[in-house]
Amino acid sequence: MALETENDGFAEVVTLGQSKPLLLDSGVALDSFDMAYKSWGKINEDKSNVILVCHALTGDHFVRGINPITKKGGWWENMVGPEKPVDTNRYFVICINVLGSCAGSTGPSSLNPKTGKTYGLDFPVITIGDMVRAQAMLLDHLGIDKIFSVIGGSMGGMQVLQWAADFPDRVVTAIPIAATWRHSAQNIAFHEVGRQAIMADPNWDHGGYFDKGKNPHSGLAVARMAAHITYMSESGLTSRFGRNLQDRDKIAFGFDADFQIESYLRHQGISFVDRFDANSYLYITRAMDYYDLSADHGGVLAGAFQGTKTRFCILSFNSDWLYATEESRHIVRSLNAVGARVSFADIDMDKGHDSFLLDCDDMYNIVSGFLQSEAELMGLIDHE
Amino acid sequence: MALETENDGFAEVVTLGQSKPLLLDSGVALDSFDMAYKSWGKINEDKSNVILVCHALTGDHFVRGINPITKKGGWWENMVGPEKPVDTNRYFVICINVLGSCAGSTGPSSLNPKTGKTYGLDFPVITIGDMVRAQAMLLDHLGIDKIFSVIGGSMGGMQVLQWAADFPDRVVTAIPIAATWRHSAQNIAFHEVGRQAIMADPNWDHGGYFDKGKNPHSGLAVARMAAHITYMSESGLTSRFGRNLQDRDKIAFGFDADFQIESYLRHQGISFVDRFDANSYLYITRAMDYYDLSADHGGVLAGAFQGTKTRFCILSFNSDWLYATEESRHIVRSLNAVGARVSFADIDMDKGHDSFLLDCDDMYNIVSGFLQSEAELMGLIDHE
Repeated sequence: MALETENDGFAEVVTLGQSKPLLLDSGVALDSFDMAYKSWGKINEDKSNVILVCHALTGDHFVRGINPITKKGGWWENMVGPEKPVDTNRYFVICINVLGSCAGSTGPSSLNPKTGKTYGLDFPVITIGDMVRAQAMLLDHLGIDKIFSVIGGSMGGMQVLQWAADFPDRVVTAIPIAATWRHSAQNIAFHEVGRQAIMADPNWDHGGYFDKGKNPHSGLAVARMAAHITYMSESGLTSRFGRNLQDRDKIAFGFDADFQIESYLRHQGISFVDRFDANSYLYITRAMDYYDLSADHGGVLAGAFQGTKTRFCILSFNSDWLYATEESRHIVRSLNAVGARVSFADIDMDKGHDSFLLDCDDMYNIVSGFLQSEAELMGLIDHE
Repeated sequence: MALETENDGFAEVVTLGQSKPLLLDSGVALDSFDMAYKSWGKINEDKSNVILVCHALTGDHFVRGINPITKKGGWWENMVGPEKPVDTNRYFVICINVLGSCAGSTGPSSLNPKTGKTYGLDFPVITIGDMVRAQAMLLDHLGIDKIFSVIGGSMGGMQVLQWAADFPDRVVTAIPIAATWRHSAQNIAFHEVGRQAIMADPNWDHGGYFDKGKNPHSGLAVARMAAHITYMSESGLTSRFGRNLQDRDKIAFGFDADFQIESYLRHQGISFVDRFDANSYLYITRAMDYYDLSADHGGVLAGAFQGTKTRFCILSFNSDWLYATEESRHIVRSLNAVGARVSFADIDMDKGHDSFLLDCDDMYNIVSGFLQSEAELMGLIDHE
């Protein structure tokens, strides 16, 4: 197990569920599944310095270092690393590819051990709760009980909240960023458009494309384009692209990409299909749509956190219209209602939902400051 | 010509351009094209009581009465009719299907007289300015010079502004509702997603589906679904649908429509393809994306209205995030800058962009009050 040093190569993969299956929220028991992860930093003797990073919808466990799929750097190198806000000189940082994804953990593009064929739509529909329980099984396997902090943005932040709700005794601190506590009608609507775009592609073939050598690239690209708009703010798009033309002096009176925003979106769609599986997109968006932390508590979110001792640091961005500031405020109010310790900041940044991935000093300062003071409280580090 | 009474049957269609072609912004000369229209009310002797209604992207000239395509009532019966805000007892109201559309006026689904085949992508790319000039040619043909008022919502409002900018001496009053003065990067982005969804459908066949007995229904439905989300507000979606399930007590752990919002969106997509042509969708969205009234004036919108004598009544809705209130405010400021007479109201209504189509007393009162006072000024009606 790579519990010691930064591993710049491929991820570790562990097969779980064989002795004790993962009982999914759907009722299906998953009795053999892989979980892929990467880790950085050194775990201390009592394993009290663990930070779990949770990734977003199309993310993976390649937080740092070259991603073997994209050949590019990790998706959160600005946030996680030596002397970064999530400091790998101090903490043992681990990120696990979510169940249902396609970067190493089992998902619909994996082989079904029972049939020897690709799962496709035979893969069971999963939830954010299932993703988190699968992660917990991996941490059990690694002998990690307490998590000093669990941190993530977007769907990563949804997992952070699910971790805190389902494993209050394991989670010391929680940092959900640009997250929500339930998918709204508008959130579901955008995901449904993406799913319908994939399913409308004849190459999707009811999810059975893999074993037929086909791939619904066109549909998946359209899905990505629609979603990508929701990740950026109107003002951010205007300041970055406006009505600027792409490689031309005037409009061309045709259907090529006249505008930079069109060219940019098309590029987002085309490049996405090389790194992500269409069925995984269906499954993970479904899990997000099913997400409602208040559902088991009569619609009262506070019920999910009754009696919690976890300490929360909640961050939102004022230009995020996908999971708007008001959603984070509702989480804060709900935590206040059960007397939880919570700090909250709505960061002024005009880049929209994706701000959590971008360079943002306010985010860095708040996360490092929160972790610093909590680590001092825990005696993990000396008072500075 | 139906300049007398309400015509509940099919529309009038006039072929134009044969003696004097319509010179399009692209440089193409259109020397034979049909314009379909409907009218209500009685025109007065000096033809001074004409109100032109401009329709939106997927609208048509069936403002009132049974629409022969959908077999449903007209799209603005709440606004236009006897004793309605646009009162057909007082005014001669006319609505013209826009050039490029598919409800009677010439568009890409029409026969190209030069080839005897459907235009498809051989139809020239058009602009909002082209649409308005085509309408002006029809009004010329009908012997109508002055327009007492031109009114419309969304793309209809864009035409209203274009009318006022291009024909200041013909337009006495102008009522753009839920409109914008240029398509933003985000506006273009959503349209581009829709176009890519259509073009990704193999049945689109580079626009040549008509003569091959095919139809890109799947792609067009996805395009409509994506657009439809932008027509409704987040809060409106939440209050109407929330996370309510569709015909079931609990989530089904599958990819059918579990949620009402999914079922609703799918219905919007499926029913749309029966009434609208995919190529028309490409052409009209393109025209909207090209729309920028400030472009010929160095980016300064006020330049488009220099010296105007048209009197404006501008309406926006505070929940409209497609063409947000700020866009209307910019129009108002620009009109103020050139000393134009303009009244402005931002209506408090939570239904989003589509509010202009819905039941809204504030909108009714403002439109009828504005028309009343302007008609009194003109001596069209006595002071009440």
